[in-house]
Amino acid sequence: MLVRFSKMHGLGNDFMVIDAVSQRVRLSEQTVRRLADRHTGIGFDQLLLVEPPTRPDLDFRYRIYNADGSEVEHCGNGARCFARFVRDKRLTVKDEIAVETARGKAILKMLPDRLVEVDMGAPCLNPVEIPFAAELQAPVYSLDVKGTSYELSAVSMGNPHAVLVVDDIETAPVKTLGPLIERHPRFPQRVNVGFMQVLSRSHIALRVFERGAGETLACGTGACAAVVAGRLRGLLDAQVKVSLPGGELYIGWRGDGASVMMTGPATTVFEGQVYL
Amino acid sequence: MLVRFSKMHGLGNDFMVIDAVSQRVRLSEQTVRRLADRHTGIGFDQLLLVEPPTRPDLDFRYRIYNADGSEVEHCGNGARCFARFVRDKRLTVKDEIAVETARGKAILKMLPDRLVEVDMGAPCLNPVEIPFAAELQAPVYSLDVKGTSYELSAVSMGNPHAVLVVDDIETAPVKTLGPLIERHPRFPQRVNVGFMQVLSRSHIALRVFERGAGETLACGTGACAAVVAGRLRGLLDAQVKVSLPGGELYIGWRGDGASVMMTGPATTVFEGQVYL
Repeated sequence: MLVRFSKMHGLGNDFMVIDAVSQRVRLSEQTVRRLADRHTGIGFDQLLLVEPPTRPDLDFRYRIYNADGSEVEHCGNGARCFARFVRDKRLTVKDEIAVETARGKAILKMLPDRLVEVDMGAPCLNPVEIPFAAELQAPVYSLDVKGTSYELSAVSMGNPHAVLVVDDIETAPVKTLGPLIERHPRFPQRVNVGFMQVLSRSHIALRVFERGAGETLACGTGACAAVVAGRLRGLLDAQVKVSLPGGELYIGWRGDGASVMMTGPATTVFEGQVYL
Repeated sequence: MLVRFSKMHGLGNDFMVIDAVSQRVRLSEQTVRRLADRHTGIGFDQLLLVEPPTRPDLDFRYRIYNADGSEVEHCGNGARCFARFVRDKRLTVKDEIAVETARGKAILKMLPDRLVEVDMGAPCLNPVEIPFAAELQAPVYSLDVKGTSYELSAVSMGNPHAVLVVDDIETAPVKTLGPLIERHPRFPQRVNVGFMQVLSRSHIALRVFERGAGETLACGTGACAAVVAGRLRGLLDAQVKVSLPGGELYIGWRGDGASVMMTGPATTVFEGQVYL
């Protein structure tokens, strides 16, 4: 079966995107793993499958597979590519696209300059749910790492994040302190670790050590968590530009109970056909 | 400019292949580097460009670019993919394809079972030309590495190779001894290091530590050098199956002065279109 696909990326986080609305596509875990190989397959961080919705009030079903074939719940960089794809392929003409994800409904909004805005949901600050071992919820916690105390915020964006404020993003100990906090016993499901330099009330620089992956070019949920943490600590305004090694995201959060809105680019690299 | 391409691999060594006979294609070093990026581009080990020949007795000109944009002379795995490509795209119907490479003419031969045979040229055993510091040419040399003496053969297939015979390919010290020999002062331009287990007179297992790259899945010139070394030492017949981590190659060498013939697979992964 010959299947058309697009290869896309959002700040270097790369995706194979398949239209399963106008094409019949069946993917086994083994097929996804084979396609993910960067030498003998297509190569990608995640595969995005565009399916018809199962409910009439939604436009598409949005499924995401990791390179190991497992299905995952949400990916901000992928959601922007998904929106760009369904518009470029004329699967919809809407500016606001309602998609069904594994964790519920998400709204993707087309903006000028080929930017896409994604509703990333409300952050969760309850230590039990993050999960993070702490007696009371607080904007800042002290964490003891091998005898040194570090101040950090703990935020869940569906996945757990620890956020530290640093004076200089270039010299931040991402590769040394990152893995120690990632596997700290107070984060029983491990944690993504963000190092944020506050450049102004509306601009931060951020590097993220991702759980199980190491430092990455652009972690979408990490950018959201950093802005939430900065807002909780009174350092940031409601609209913040986040400079990541892979490029820039724009994060908006009005505060308690509101969704975090993430805006950024989505780039199509090439079109392909592959036999599955 | 929208350019059609194929993505192919030979035992995991992967290539973007572009038909520059029926398409007008101009590639700057910067474009090659951009295309080579595995996240924001196509991703490949080398880019193969199929051009019209500059001489009437040849069928094509065959150019090879590394991921860094530099042009290289020869690549056995790439040559097989080149031959498969020009046949599948009906740029020729010949079974023997004469191509012009940066170091002269090469003949690529289509065999049954989608295999391709490549004339890899005659090996060079002269220490001065390899280059290897030795007083006299010999089938086996002793090399002192940190106080331990190792027996190895030295062969050039256009690039320098050291070949050691080991008892067990699984436990061969590829990652530890490999880099020490690669940078040994007696190999002034460094060296590729092959570890060969002789399974029979017509079958070897081989792992190669490639100069500047570390252990790879399938080094074509390494397979040639190993069979030449085994023949010089009286261990192998003229036709030898070489089992590499990435798959199997068949190497033939009649002896002194003759070309080494390499036979192996070439696989098309997908077809694509990209704007250059």
